[in-house]
Amino acid sequence: MNDFVNRQWTVAERPTGDLEARHFGYREVPVDTPGEGEVLLRTRYLNVAPVMRMYMMAEGGGESTEAVLAIGDVIHGRGVAEVLESRHPDYAAGDFVHGQLGWQTHKVSAMTAQEKFVKMRPRGVPVYYGLSALGMTGYSAWCGFVSRGSPRPGEAVLVSGAAGGVGSLVVQIARARGCRPVVGIAGGPEKCELVRELGATDVIDYRHDDVEACIGALFPGGLDIYFDNVGGEILEAALEHLAPRARVVLCGSISEYTRDEPFGPRNYTRLRRGDADMRGFFVYNHADEFDRAEEEMAGWIRAGKLRALVDFSDGFETLPESLMGLYTGTNFGKRIVRVTPGEDPVH
Amino acid sequence: MNDFVNRQWTVAERPTGDLEARHFGYREVPVDTPGEGEVLLRTRYLNVAPVMRMYMMAEGGGESTEAVLAIGDVIHGRGVAEVLESRHPDYAAGDFVHGQLGWQTHKVSAMTAQEKFVKMRPRGVPVYYGLSALGMTGYSAWCGFVSRGSPRPGEAVLVSGAAGGVGSLVVQIARARGCRPVVGIAGGPEKCELVRELGATDVIDYRHDDVEACIGALFPGGLDIYFDNVGGEILEAALEHLAPRARVVLCGSISEYTRDEPFGPRNYTRLRRGDADMRGFFVYNHADEFDRAEEEMAGWIRAGKLRALVDFSDGFETLPESLMGLYTGTNFGKRIVRVTPGEDPVH
Repeated sequence: MNDFVNRQWTVAERPTGDLEARHFGYREVPVDTPGEGEVLLRTRYLNVAPVMRMYMMAEGGGESTEAVLAIGDVIHGRGVAEVLESRHPDYAAGDFVHGQLGWQTHKVSAMTAQEKFVKMRPRGVPVYYGLSALGMTGYSAWCGFVSRGSPRPGEAVLVSGAAGGVGSLVVQIARARGCRPVVGIAGGPEKCELVRELGATDVIDYRHDDVEACIGALFPGGLDIYFDNVGGEILEAALEHLAPRARVVLCGSISEYTRDEPFGPRNYTRLRRGDADMRGFFVYNHADEFDRAEEEMAGWIRAGKLRALVDFSDGFETLPESLMGLYTGTNFGKRIVRVTPGEDPVH
Repeated sequence: MNDFVNRQWTVAERPTGDLEARHFGYREVPVDTPGEGEVLLRTRYLNVAPVMRMYMMAEGGGESTEAVLAIGDVIHGRGVAEVLESRHPDYAAGDFVHGQLGWQTHKVSAMTAQEKFVKMRPRGVPVYYGLSALGMTGYSAWCGFVSRGSPRPGEAVLVSGAAGGVGSLVVQIARARGCRPVVGIAGGPEKCELVRELGATDVIDYRHDDVEACIGALFPGGLDIYFDNVGGEILEAALEHLAPRARVVLCGSISEYTRDEPFGPRNYTRLRRGDADMRGFFVYNHADEFDRAEEEMAGWIRAGKLRALVDFSDGFETLPESLMGLYTGTNFGKRIVRVTPGEDPVH
């Protein structure tokens, strides 16, 4: 035992429709002392992501590899933590890791494979990059776009969810890799402006514009790559404008998380005319590419060519409202909860 | 002018629901004499295919490259013809060609690119192979499966529409290329028996079996390749059982031709978990592979490893009923109308 208090958010009720405050439970519990082979972690940042609503449901996270949660369990969530105390040979106090911490301020962990902890290499950047370009979000963007999208310089690229964590990185990676045009889709003038600042050659506002007409106008020769973070009608609009041998990379489908009935793209046969591909993508299939992804992106960060679009929310208590806001589009870039306001450790 | 009578089937009415006899018109017209650069063709075989209903609609053939037909026009149809008379430098009387003849017994043609005529090389096989393995059907099977499916020996393959023209060839190509198991899906015990005789290791009867349960039982490690000729619920069943890095080749979607509303596979996101691909395919994108396809398949035919599953209908007058039967599944293999009963020329 020690003097720390572990604050936790748990599943109080299973959501059926929209997430509401009553679905979340809060409690404070003592923090255990790490045993042999264990580490005591202090959570510095927690990521919130659309899939978390599914974690709270009886079926768990759908395509994720996380365990199904029972009522009363701490909600799954990836974060960045500092090692406070270590009885594990691979970790020392002062190290930073990112991985599966759950919605809690402290964790005693045996650092199992299931938790997917990665020790962060010192790169002289704020450690929250471990939840963006230099962590799973960055690996998703890089491996999805580079490895599954097979971009060539000069190819025409469309990215949906372009103001989101993955999408905002894909826009920048596409530019850094010489694609043109690189068009982002986002919702509302502020997000669109943000995407333009990241280097997109044009931005489509799905709340205001006729998405399909805009795609047709901006891509007279068709899309070479569509990086799909949303699914639904925007996927259908993109399928109407594929160039020969186009690649549609299926990275996410946020629009699926809030539908009652699953939605199938009714025009998927458009893939046939030009021998186009729809390529599924799951980041953990690409673990052997993470080093290469991190190295290339760290270089771009240092060269000022790539930055994390992070939308901080201050304080552990803001987790539920931060998650609920995702489905209504209040976030700009990656939504990260800063557990201790005012502190941004660099490592 | 000459003494020949050209018999023709035309579009009399546009179909909205199922095809009926009243949608077809019949007439007899004189046959023109070929001018300079033209060829007089005598139709020996005509293929009937599901897409032909779409040719008869106001929108034309959907994804096909054929011209939209007006009321009274001769219905599009590919066939094998003999050259009766030639004033074209590349053709001589006695040659055989396959290409776009239309539903008629004679054609005077300038052999334009639009008609896609191919002069058949003498191979000592019945010329109707030009509508099967040694023509577009064979190119569709070979290029779709080999070029887009990227099969490796020992991979697990599922083929829908396995008693159809393309599907029956894909089953045999998959076996000849060393895949295992190679499972076909067909409708009814007779077709299933036929597919088994072609070398399928197992057959699923979609009219009788629980298709998804059968796929699960026959492919405990998942599908490496699903060659899709039908779309719809069978595509969804296959998507539930993909092996890592699986390839779904979209060749046809016969179930789409008779739906009022287009159908999107509601579980397309299953592609994500294992980085699977859904690969569109249009045979005319692969013209540079036709020679290789024909050469490999002709070798298999001569070695007795591959045969055409042809379902002949005897007589030009049987064209409408042959087409209508396709949608209700009365055909076995490729449905070909033999214009002159009793004659199967070899070339």
